[in-house]
Amino acid sequence: MAAIRLKVSSRALVSGDRLPSIRSFAATMGVSPSTVVEAYDRLAAEGLIRARRGSGFYVAGSGLPPMTLSEAGPPRDRAVDPFWVSRQSLDADPKVMKPGCGWLPADWMPNSALRRALRTLARGEDAVLAHYGSTRGSPTLRRLLLGRFAKEGLEASPEQLMLTGSGTQAIDLICRFMLRPGDAVLVDDPCYFNFQALLRAHQVRIVSVPYTPTGPDMAAFETVLTAERPRLYITNSALHNPTGATLSPQTAYRLLSAASAHDLTIVEDDIFADFEPEPSPRLAVLDGLDRVIRIGSFSKTLSASIRCGYIAARKDWMEGLVDLQVATSFGGPSPVATELIASVLAGGSYRKHMEEIRGRLARARREVAIRLESLGIRPWLMPRGGFYLWCRLPEGQDSAVLARMAVEEKVVLAPGNVFSVSRAATAFLRFNVAQSGDSRVFPVLRGAMAAAKK
Amino acid sequence: MAAIRLKVSSRALVSGDRLPSIRSFAATMGVSPSTVVEAYDRLAAEGLIRARRGSGFYVAGSGLPPMTLSEAGPPRDRAVDPFWVSRQSLDADPKVMKPGCGWLPADWMPNSALRRALRTLARGEDAVLAHYGSTRGSPTLRRLLLGRFAKEGLEASPEQLMLTGSGTQAIDLICRFMLRPGDAVLVDDPCYFNFQALLRAHQVRIVSVPYTPTGPDMAAFETVLTAERPRLYITNSALHNPTGATLSPQTAYRLLSAASAHDLTIVEDDIFADFEPEPSPRLAVLDGLDRVIRIGSFSKTLSASIRCGYIAARKDWMEGLVDLQVATSFGGPSPVATELIASVLAGGSYRKHMEEIRGRLARARREVAIRLESLGIRPWLMPRGGFYLWCRLPEGQDSAVLARMAVEEKVVLAPGNVFSVSRAATAFLRFNVAQSGDSRVFPVLRGAMAAAKK
Repeated sequence: MAAIRLKVSSRALVSGDRLPSIRSFAATMGVSPSTVVEAYDRLAAEGLIRARRGSGFYVAGSGLPPMTLSEAGPPRDRAVDPFWVSRQSLDADPKVMKPGCGWLPADWMPNSALRRALRTLARGEDAVLAHYGSTRGSPTLRRLLLGRFAKEGLEASPEQLMLTGSGTQAIDLICRFMLRPGDAVLVDDPCYFNFQALLRAHQVRIVSVPYTPTGPDMAAFETVLTAERPRLYITNSALHNPTGATLSPQTAYRLLSAASAHDLTIVEDDIFADFEPEPSPRLAVLDGLDRVIRIGSFSKTLSASIRCGYIAARKDWMEGLVDLQVATSFGGPSPVATELIASVLAGGSYRKHMEEIRGRLARARREVAIRLESLGIRPWLMPRGGFYLWCRLPEGQDSAVLARMAVEEKVVLAPGNVFSVSRAATAFLRFNVAQSGDSRVFPVLRGAMAAAKK
Repeated sequence: MAAIRLKVSSRALVSGDRLPSIRSFAATMGVSPSTVVEAYDRLAAEGLIRARRGSGFYVAGSGLPPMTLSEAGPPRDRAVDPFWVSRQSLDADPKVMKPGCGWLPADWMPNSALRRALRTLARGEDAVLAHYGSTRGSPTLRRLLLGRFAKEGLEASPEQLMLTGSGTQAIDLICRFMLRPGDAVLVDDPCYFNFQALLRAHQVRIVSVPYTPTGPDMAAFETVLTAERPRLYITNSALHNPTGATLSPQTAYRLLSAASAHDLTIVEDDIFADFEPEPSPRLAVLDGLDRVIRIGSFSKTLSASIRCGYIAARKDWMEGLVDLQVATSFGGPSPVATELIASVLAGGSYRKHMEEIRGRLARARREVAIRLESLGIRPWLMPRGGFYLWCRLPEGQDSAVLARMAVEEKVVLAPGNVFSVSRAATAFLRFNVAQSGDSRVFPVLRGAMAAAKK
C-alpha cells in the first residue's frame, strides 16, 4: 500500500494510469499475489484506486492528492507534529493559556512606541502608504540594522542586506535559493519546530545533531558532515530555541572550521539577540558573512503583527535572493511595516524597554523554575536570557500525552518531540516563562501528570 | 560547456567531483576530443572547473552555484527578462517615469481613508499591534470578502477562505501545494510577467496558449491540455493583464468544460475586479470554487504598501494551504495590515473612491490612446476598464530595444516579450495609462523610436 501511495504522491502514477498487474507487482515486491490483492482492495476502499471489471486497477478520479505536510483534520484531533504548537497557539481563543507558545504577552510589547509610530505614519508621505517600496526594502531600516551589526564588529555593506516579509520567509527564500529536493539539511536536535515544517515543504532530507549546553555536539557534527554532506545548517546561536543554551567560542570556531572543510553554508537565526544580557559568540560575525547567512526579525521584541525580517549574506548571493523575493512575494516587505519598525528602533524608548523586559524575564524565569520544580519538572539548563525553559519531566511522563490532555483544559503546551528530529525528547516540555504566570497553568499540568500516571 | 554547466547546476556534479574524461565525453557528445578540450579550458578560465596535473578536470572550489532565476548584474545591464519590468520599476528613483509599471500613482490611492484607519489603529487593542494573529487571518476581513463574493453569486464558507501575505504569495502557496518540479503549467500568451518568474522558481514547465479578445484561444487550449497535461492554469479573467481583454461567457463555459475533462485546476487572479465598470464572467463563480481557486489582493486599489492577499478554494485543500503558510511565513498576514484594509473596505468612502478612479482611468485611457496613435502605436483592443493598454508598435520596431533606450532617459517601459512565453510580442508594449500623463514620456518614446529606426 505504501509503495503504491508513494508512486501516486510522487506521480510515477497519475489519475487514470493502470496499476501494475497483481502477478507482476507481487513479484516486484517479493510478496504473494494474495497480499497484493488485499492491498489493492484496501486502496480501492480508500478511493485512491479503482477496479475496472476485467482490466485491472487504475489510479482513481480527481487528480493528484495535494501535497500534505501533516495530517489534515480539525486542530484538536491532529497529530502532535511540528505544526501542532503553532496551530494550537496561533488559533487559540484569547482565554486559552499558552505556556508553550513562542511570543511574549501583548502587554509586554512596546505598544506605546508603536502607537506613536502609527500616528506619525498617519501624517507621512503618500508614497509610503501607497507603494510597494524597493526590492531590498526600506533604506532607513537597513541603515539602522547595518549600524547595529557594526557595533558587534560585523561590517557589512548595504548590498549585503535585504528585508523580507518575516524571519521565516527569510529562511524560506534561502532554502529556495540553495536547496533542491532530496538535499540533506542539518538542524540541531532539539531545534525550533518550524525549521522542520519549513524543510518538509522543501522536500529535503532533514538530518540532526544533538545540541549540548555549549552548542551542537561537535563530534557528531563532523561525522554527519562527512556521512550526509548536508548543503545547509540552520541554527540559532544566541539563546538557542528551545534550550536557551549559548554557543561557546570554542564550539563556534570548531563549527566554522568544519563547515569550511565541508563547504557547508550556515543560516544563523538571530531572532533572540536583543534578549541577551550580554553578547555571545556569533557565527556570522566570526565568519564575516562569507559562508554564514544571518537572518532575523522583530517579531519577538517589537511586534509579531508588523511582519518584517531580513537576510544578511554574501554580496554575490543577494541579486538571486532579491529576484526570488520578487518572483514569490513581489517587492520587499511592506513599507508601512518597515517604517513603523524603523521608527520604534530609532526612538529612544526601545533600548530602555528591552532592558525592562530582560529584567522581567529574569524574574519570571526564576519563579517558573521554582513552580516547575515543585512538580518534579527540571530545567535542562538555566538560560542567560530569553523566555524559554527547556524542562525534563519526571520519569515515565510523555509530553505529547500531557499536551493532548492539557489542550482539553485550555492550556497549550509545547511537547518535546515537536522540536526533535530524532524524537528523542519525549520527556521534555518547552515553557515560555512570560506566558506561564497564570495561576491556572500549574494545576492543569499537575492534573494531567497525575492522570497520565494512572 | 552548456552540458557541464547543466550537470553542475543540477548537481549531477558537485564541488570536487571529477569531470568525464575528454575521450569519453567527446564520445558521449558526438564531438571531437579537441572540442571537449577547448570547452574544458574555457570552463576552467571561468573558474567553474579546475585542471589537476595528470588527473583530469574537477568541479572547482566554493560550492554550488546558487540557483539563478535570471542573469545577475546591475539592473541596467541585465537581460530584458520577466524580472526586468519589476526590478526597474520597483527600484526606480522617484524622478523616473514609469509608464510600464503595474500600479497607480500614489496620489490616486485612497490615502485619506488609510490615514484615518492608521489613527484608529493607534487607539486599538494591544493584541492587534503585538501578535501574529490567526493562521487564516483576520475574521473581520474574511467576512467582508465573503460578503462581496456572495453579491457576485459565489457562496463560500469561512473555511474556504484564507488571507495571505500578498496576491503573489497566494499563487506561490498554491503552486507549492499543487506542483512538483517538471510539471506543466499553462498560462496565457501574453500573461502577467511575474507568473513566469514565479513558475521558474518552482522549476515547472511553462506552456502557453494565445490570448484572444474574449479569452484564451480555445482550440489551442484544448490541444495543449491533451498534449501537455498541465496540472494548473493560471490566468486573470476580469481585465486581463496585460491586454485588458474580458473573458466571454462562451469561452468561460468551454474553458471550464475542458478543464473538467482533463482534470485541470485553475487559479483565477481577480486582482483587477474593482476596476471593472460592470461585472464580467468569472470562472470561480461559474465553477463554485470546485476546480477553480480564486486569489486576489488590495495592492492595486487600496495600497501596495499594506501587503495582504487571499485564497478562496475547496474546503478540503485549505488545511494543507494553511500548514504551508505556517511553515513558510509563520502565521497569516499581518493583523495590522488586515485591520487597516478591513477598516478602509468597510468605510463608506471606498466605493465612492473606486467610482472616481474608474472615471479618471477612462479619461486617461482615451487621452493616452490618442497620444500613442500620433506615434503610430495602436491598442490591440480598447479595454472596458483598468489601467493597461496593450499596444502594437509600428512595423519594424522592437519593444525591448526601445525599453533599453528609454530606461537611459529615465522612462521605464514594459516590453511585450516579458509577458510572452513564446516571445511572440516583440512588437508590443504595455502602457499604464495612469502613469503616462507626464509630458516627458512621449518625447522619449518618439526619440527612441526614431533612433531605433536608424
